[in-house]
Amino acid sequence: MIITADYDAEEHLMPTYMDVHDGFVGVNQEQFDEAHLRDLAVQDEEGVSYDHAWLDPVTGKAFCLVTGPNKEAVIRVHEKAGHPASQVYELSIQTS
Amino acid sequence: MIITADYDAEEHLMPTYMDVHDGFVGVNQEQFDEAHLRDLAVQDEEGVSYDHAWLDPVTGKAFCLVTGPNKEAVIRVHEKAGHPASQVYELSIQTS
Repeated sequence: MIITADYDAEEHLMPTYMDVHDGFVGVNQEQFDEAHLRDLAVQDEEGVSYDHAWLDPVTGKAFCLVTGPNKEAVIRVHEKAGHPASQVYELSIQTS
Repeated sequence: MIITADYDAEEHLMPTYMDVHDGFVGVNQEQFDEAHLRDLAVQDEEGVSYDHAWLDPVTGKAFCLVTGPNKEAVIRVHEKAGHPASQVYELSIQTS
């Protein structure tokens, strides 16, 4: 139980980021899944967790919700995966 | 049970949108919650559901994840709430 509590605390201390990509015009579900799997394959090396990704294939705009130790680690994962992000925002405030 | 099943089906048929706002530089948690509550107060009139919102107070960039019948309804909710979105994207593809 102590391990679980520590893990949860660490997860909540990690900043959340939204990264924004351009240029995914016409990408389909299979291609988007494949791109996301490339992030998942390298994220552990950087202590990053890519939790969700959304795409508007008409404008080519993609959004990824990520937690990680810092912005540089998030950027490196996308670079290693072959699709660098156009913008990365640290989301220190959220609500639902 | 039939009502629940119908409700779920309708929810899944509704498109998902990400809207992006600029100009929230220096906004704090309380102010962001208050802005989001103004969306929640008017969303039912348009059949829209604002599910989550994130803010980077350093750049002033905010993101809202929304479901609704169409893009125009999403735009109207933010206009009525007093903070029109800069951009709205229809997210027909997503993965996690």
